Order: sequence, then C-alpha cells, then structure tokens
Amino acid sequence: MLLCDIGNTSYHFNDGKKDFKEFADSFNPQTIKENVYYISVNQSVKEKLGSLENWIDLETFVDREKYYTTMGIDRIVALASINDGVVVDAGSAITVDVLKDGVFEGGFIYPGIKAMQECYKNISNALDYSFNFEVDLGKMAKNSPDAISYGYLKPFVNEIKSKNLPIILTGGDASEFKKLFPNARLDQELIFTGMKKIMKKAGLC
Amino acid sequence: MLLCDIGNTSYHFNDGKKDFKEFADSFNPQTIKENVYYISVNQSVKEKLGSLENWIDLETFVDREKYYTTMGIDRIVALASINDGVVVDAGSAITVDVLKDGVFEGGFIYPGIKAMQECYKNISNALDYSFNFEVDLGKMAKNSPDAISYGYLKPFVNEIKSKNLPIILTGGDASEFKKLFPNARLDQELIFTGMKKIMKKAGLC
Repeated sequence: MLLCDIGNTSYHFNDGKKDFKEFADSFNPQTIKENVYYISVNQSVKEKLGSLENWIDLETFVDREKYYTTMGIDRIVALASINDGVVVDAGSAITVDVLKDGVFEGGFIYPGIKAMQECYKNISNALDYSFNFEVDLGKMAKNSPDAISYGYLKPFVNEIKSKNLPIILTGGDASEFKKLFPNARLDQELIFTGMKKIMKKAGLC
Repeated sequence: MLLCDIGNTSYHFNDGKKDFKEFADSFNPQTIKENVYYISVNQSVKEKLGSLENWIDLETFVDREKYYTTMGIDRIVALASINDGVVVDAGSAITVDVLKDGVFEGGFIYPGIKAMQECYKNISNALDYSFNFEVDLGKMAKNSPDAISYGYLKPFVNEIKSKNLPIILTGGDASEFKKLFPNARLDQELIFTGMKKIMKKAGLC
C-alpha cells in the first residue's frame, strides 16, 4: 500500500516501510501502477491526478464539517491521528491546531523559521541574526541577537504550553522546536498515521 | 528649546508646544539656528550633525551602562521617562523593554504590523490578510484570517501582560495596539519626556 502527502514542492511517499520524496514539478504520477492513497494541498497536482484511476484522493473520505472551509487537508489529516493534543507542524509556516476529546478547538498560524528570519532582516540589517534555540527564555534579552530569538520564540512557546495538552511536533523544522518542548513527541509520520486511520474508517484497508 | 528624535526616515521635532517632522534624506539641519537637543539612531545624520555647534547630542549624557551596547539610543531615552513599566514602541519593528524599580530587566524585538503582514504573504498568497485587531483572542481561530491575526497578536499580547507592570504604548502603530491593551497608557511624547529628564539631570535645562 502506497500513501502520498503532496505539498507545494514535493510528493512525499510512504510504503509502510520507508519514506521517499519526488519533486512536484517534475514527477510523472503515471509511472506508478499500483494504488496510491493521497492527499494534496497542491491544486495543480490534484487536477492532474483526477484522471488517474489508481490515485485515490482521501480528501473525499474526510469529514470536513468538524473543521473550517479553507483549512488545509494536511492539517485535518494530521489531526485525525490523535484525540487530544496540540499539533505543531513546523514548515515554511507553522500551523498549530488543538484537539480536545476529539473536538477541534481551533488553531493559529505563525511564521516558520526561515520566513521570520527574513522578516527581521527586511526591517533592518541590524536585525539580521539566526535564531538561537538554546537561548534562555527564562529571562528577557540584553543583547540584539537574544532580543530577536526571545521575540520569535518566547511568546510562541508560552502560547503552546498554555493549552496544557500533549504536544506533537512534525514538519521540517520539528527537531529545532523539540529543544524548546523537551516533553513533546516528535512524529514525522503523523500525517501517514492519520491517512491510515481515515482509510480504516472508510473500509479501504 | 527644540528637541529632536532622529530615526531612519525622519527628524521628529518638538518645541514644547507642537511636533513636526522633516525627511532625514532631504532636510538641511543648518537651516536651524537655535540650540537643538537631539538623539539619533541614524548614523549618517549623526555624522553630519557632529560638526554643527548648535546641535547637541544627548547620547553623550546618557548612562549606557544600565543597558546593552547595541541597544538603540531611542529605546534607552524612552525608558528614562519611567521607573516601572513595559514600554512597547510599535514601529517598523516593535521593541519591548521592561523597567522595574528603575532597573532595566531586558527586552525583546517583535516584527511590526507591516513587516509581519509581508512575512505571511511571502510564505504564501493564501496567507495574505490584514490583521484584525478586534479579533476575539479568547478563543483559537477557525478561519484563515483569524488564524493569522491570532498567531501574530495572541502570543505577543500574553507575553506583555505576563510582566504585570504598567504598559506604555508609543510609536506609529501604538493606537492599533491600544485596542488590545485597553488599560495601557498611549504616550507619543515618551521620548521627549525622557530627553527632558536627561537634560535636567545633566543641568542642561
């Protein structure tokens, strides 16, 4: 069984044993003959796949009513794998979603590491620093690099912790944020676990 | 007596009765004949003024030891006007500085409204929304525009409130933030009050 999570830049496959990626722009989905269960936030890839019978869009099996209209299908599917928790998906944007007793409480979107670094730099070259994930967030900053790191990280970390729920980290920058949430679970398979759960519920496996 | 706070884009004057601004690029400081007491974060203007006798740099009268080396003189002078409080200067960057019993506890830097809006937009056009300062921060977001507003504002607001000190808002976007801190003092003269305090201490007035 082949699962695939399609983003703006890549197809992310999982065959139950290993993960692999293909570029969204150049990969030809017709080269795969077996059934592929996928979700896609990439509209142009989605349209291309619509005519291929062995590519099955799991979005059609998802109950969207619990969530909101413009919420990305990847966020919804990641949440399908848990019942209680804060899911922090740290990519180019950081999406934060809260599920309590299986009910979606809402979420928010915060800039990812690279985007926020660019943001500070665009304000002034004097703010062009890398974030220090080992900065002491217990005290306010007394130099410019720490003032940037504290500004980006401290309010965000406190907001997540204030939910008092298990924290699940996923996405490309998850391991950086793990330093700030030592008790969090780092789970790069979250989306595939969610996909399998949806398939089971729909009787597809 | 003429006071002047010089930033990257403008000379901000105060003659004790009214404020007025001149562009940093085009204004000729030699057109002013009376004494001007100024501070400047603008290095090129600072160099130009060094040779003019009637332009007196107040930075030389400031005790920098309480603060840190790269801290902008405008932040230091704003703090001179209070003894206890959180000073939030909402400009292109938002600087937050905490003073407790006259002691500088530290601070942090957060992106200003325009910079953060650009930041979200640069991540994806799907995140290109204006912030809603009237969003209900009491509950997490269930639509994309609110998810952006919540992400930018909620963690920041909580961080400031967590200091449990009087909040003083200043800078170009102060009135927007006033909506989130109804008990805060909005004070656009903060920097001039600080300048006068420094002058008094130095026996200049």
